[in-house]
Amino acid sequence: MEIHALSRKYYLELAGPGEGDARGDRERILEALPEECRGAQMPLAVMRTLYPMCREAGFRLTVTLVQNGFGWEVLRVEPGDTTAVHYGAAVDFGSTTLVMQVVNLNTGEIVTQQSIFNPQIRYGEEILSRIFYTKDQLEHLREMQETTASGFNALIAKCEEDCGIPRGQYTAMTVGGNTTMIQLLLGVYPWPVFETPYAPAVQEPGFLAAAELGISLPGYVYLFPSAANYLGGDIISGLLAAGIDQSERLSVFIDIGTNGELVAGNSEFLLAGAGAAGPALEGGISRYGMRADTGAVDHVHIQDGKLQIHVIGAAQGGTQNSQSAGAPAARKDRPESTDAPRPQGICGSGIVDLLAELFLNGWVDALGKFQEDASERIIQVRNHLDEEREELAVCYAWASESANGEDLVFTQSDVTEFIRTKAAAHTMVAYLIDEFGLQEEDVARFYLAGAFGKYLDVEAAVTIGMYPDLPRDKFVMIGNASLEGARKLLLDARCLADVERIVRKITYVQFGEAGNFVERMHAAQFLPYTDLDAYPSVKRRLQRR
Amino acid sequence: MEIHALSRKYYLELAGPGEGDARGDRERILEALPEECRGAQMPLAVMRTLYPMCREAGFRLTVTLVQNGFGWEVLRVEPGDTTAVHYGAAVDFGSTTLVMQVVNLNTGEIVTQQSIFNPQIRYGEEILSRIFYTKDQLEHLREMQETTASGFNALIAKCEEDCGIPRGQYTAMTVGGNTTMIQLLLGVYPWPVFETPYAPAVQEPGFLAAAELGISLPGYVYLFPSAANYLGGDIISGLLAAGIDQSERLSVFIDIGTNGELVAGNSEFLLAGAGAAGPALEGGISRYGMRADTGAVDHVHIQDGKLQIHVIGAAQGGTQNSQSAGAPAARKDRPESTDAPRPQGICGSGIVDLLAELFLNGWVDALGKFQEDASERIIQVRNHLDEEREELAVCYAWASESANGEDLVFTQSDVTEFIRTKAAAHTMVAYLIDEFGLQEEDVARFYLAGAFGKYLDVEAAVTIGMYPDLPRDKFVMIGNASLEGARKLLLDARCLADVERIVRKITYVQFGEAGNFVERMHAAQFLPYTDLDAYPSVKRRLQRR
Repeated sequence: MEIHALSRKYYLELAGPGEGDARGDRERILEALPEECRGAQMPLAVMRTLYPMCREAGFRLTVTLVQNGFGWEVLRVEPGDTTAVHYGAAVDFGSTTLVMQVVNLNTGEIVTQQSIFNPQIRYGEEILSRIFYTKDQLEHLREMQETTASGFNALIAKCEEDCGIPRGQYTAMTVGGNTTMIQLLLGVYPWPVFETPYAPAVQEPGFLAAAELGISLPGYVYLFPSAANYLGGDIISGLLAAGIDQSERLSVFIDIGTNGELVAGNSEFLLAGAGAAGPALEGGISRYGMRADTGAVDHVHIQDGKLQIHVIGAAQGGTQNSQSAGAPAARKDRPESTDAPRPQGICGSGIVDLLAELFLNGWVDALGKFQEDASERIIQVRNHLDEEREELAVCYAWASESANGEDLVFTQSDVTEFIRTKAAAHTMVAYLIDEFGLQEEDVARFYLAGAFGKYLDVEAAVTIGMYPDLPRDKFVMIGNASLEGARKLLLDARCLADVERIVRKITYVQFGEAGNFVERMHAAQFLPYTDLDAYPSVKRRLQRR
Repeated sequence: MEIHALSRKYYLELAGPGEGDARGDRERILEALPEECRGAQMPLAVMRTLYPMCREAGFRLTVTLVQNGFGWEVLRVEPGDTTAVHYGAAVDFGSTTLVMQVVNLNTGEIVTQQSIFNPQIRYGEEILSRIFYTKDQLEHLREMQETTASGFNALIAKCEEDCGIPRGQYTAMTVGGNTTMIQLLLGVYPWPVFETPYAPAVQEPGFLAAAELGISLPGYVYLFPSAANYLGGDIISGLLAAGIDQSERLSVFIDIGTNGELVAGNSEFLLAGAGAAGPALEGGISRYGMRADTGAVDHVHIQDGKLQIHVIGAAQGGTQNSQSAGAPAARKDRPESTDAPRPQGICGSGIVDLLAELFLNGWVDALGKFQEDASERIIQVRNHLDEEREELAVCYAWASESANGEDLVFTQSDVTEFIRTKAAAHTMVAYLIDEFGLQEEDVARFYLAGAFGKYLDVEAAVTIGMYPDLPRDKFVMIGNASLEGARKLLLDARCLADVERIVRKITYVQFGEAGNFVERMHAAQFLPYTDLDAYPSVKRRLQRR
């Protein structure tokens, strides 16, 4: 990998002033830099350090340069050769979790990865409640900004502690965050992000002095731009990571978190859409739906008529996001817990598995209707929102096994709701592919970003028709794509041009307004799809059973 | 005059966000600017003002942009049309005096001109004593920087008071100052400016945030670069004002202040040299030498054997610099004082006049020797440095007429010293012209900068051979050229390229090391010159008398 980081260090051994050479120290240093850095800006604070330091060091100096949005800026001049110490930080700034990687800018190596909960959560789990808190309240806005910055600083401290490299050496930072998160970090009113026509105050903040944001790092912080209110810097960063605009062939990028965002495109066009797919997929629809945290059923298998579950162990703690980290310092896979925890609910990947298994084993039909006689686990329950109504459900953990002493069930209503959601996801993808005049089989890469994409069983997701039935090697699980993109840019300043091109190229599609969208969505409310021939691999599996 | 000021204001009437246009406020504003400003940087502080201000103003906004060295930066966004209020400040930052003009950046009109003594004077009249004060003393350096900035702020306050336009509307500032002055304003150790090989810490500071310098203005301050320790930003600014690098024909530029700097050149080459001509020319050699202040003899005439003097009146007050101001608000010429002050000494222009008149009337010969019998005003006096030694002198004011009750005299030693100085000035000019392979008559323009050049009688200066005997219309008195250049740049950002070209093009000549310099200087120690034929106009005047 060629490294063109947002921060550079050069060691110079210069001849000092002498006969016929009375150039200033500032000019002597700048003229000795590689050509593209010679026009670098030197701030007053650095000028003040030059004399007598340069002469005392015999003009053997290390110059640190950072990108400031206009070009290179001298961050510091130090005596001796300190080029070996050169780090930066990449951040995925989620509304729930902040994840930071400290990266060696000489080698690209990830030195540590840490995460913390977004301290904004104290103002509400929902983004909307945080926005409301700041509405027309300058003091609240400032408080939110400071709280946000304090989260960054706490995370920096955690990284420092883990890797032992002091923050003064992290000379660049990149941040992928959604539009609202970025407004709150800036200390800019986020209200217009949620008010029609959804035009924020700032879409492309670019580089800002860390100190100005209250972040205790020496250089600049680059904030990925947003392309629209639902297409924030986190998605743009993810697209950079996937590089879908670099190929002539069509790729699809899906990031499913609280919202579901998807982008389809190639080097010519990028079409983007978003839907509130998240809550359903994250288990929000079910009474026993939960995040992929300790006690959540995350995998389901039916073998010989017997339903088997896997429960996330306590050892992993934290949130789904923090587990999804791709860094060496973090656990990549869910280890078996030594003392298996009792289940207390089901998370997104568990639901997809469950539904696929129910369908493959004939416990539900192609419409998602429970087949009462298929298993003893299919039982009658009262609807938890409407006690008058009884419905069928599958019990994936009996009361005696569960953490809360209740039968853990996934009801007919849950199935129907989930199928509606997966139909929306499917139709959005299909719609975008259509827009290019292409077919599903023309998709060269199907990128699955986010923790959900990472843990989801692709086979199961195809089985229920959530993803198209593509050759499995076309699916690319890129995990925390926002973090990946942030690190990519940190290590390659040339990506700034890519980011700008992506933002300019992207076209946002309002699915609700799209012609036959609703009809198509209805057609997708089958398992896996109205036309089984569109899902040959599922058809084969069904025929095998 | 076409104005391309360092600050720009644009009034925009924009459509707000709406159907199909959800661009951010920041992006909406930047995209509406003229093309060259579209990439402008918007600082965080400005981003924070956008919402809800833009919407409340119906997107009728005035955007102020300032040059920051890299490009345009948004200084502020305001509701409504404020483009009519648009000012900047140009400063001549002398070691004795600071002169400031407030300029209307829409019309180029000078709104006020004010001056104050450089507050650094409290650390010594001589630059060297100020440099010593800060040597190895960080606290003293900081104190000097703050004192310097306080001078700028006091001057700004004086301008505000005079013109009634508040400083918040001065959105750009340009400063021409010598190398040491600039180091002190920066808060950078000036020591190396005076220590061989005279390489300062900073030669080209460029644009700095006014606030960072402690100057209470909203935007950036541009500091003219220096080309060498004796060729400071004040000279570079003066060269920009004269524009000698714009013509193919040879021009000479002389700025005589505390030091004498001269530059000869054309669009191809610029040769520069400097000498400590100042003290002699400013009267420093004579016991009764003084600055061009109240009580100084500034003009001398001998009519029918009678010596007449003109004394600077109290009404004018202040220093020579402050009187030399070319602004409407300041007096351009020295008015006759109603109650004529008594003389107390002689200033530079008085000395040149005196010497020319002594010579033309035969009171001194071509070697500058007093002719004892030529007038009763030629008297014997004791040398003020060596009481044992008697010498001849001319008494230009008897004790009974003088302010201090002493005979005001200009002695044989003073004459000899002054002739040595004028010889140096002459030889430096001749030497540089020679370097171009040209003759004196090839000089197309002879620019006389500085207060000294402004008040000096050209006829007298030619008579004593200080200036070459050129057609008088070739002499251009450009007054405070440093201030003129600062205003020129303030009103025309394109001059930044000229400044850079001047600095790159200039070659500094060490006269001391030049081959036959000393011999040539000896040859110039005649009035007006060894070869009278080189001074035909003087020859004619001598023949006439």
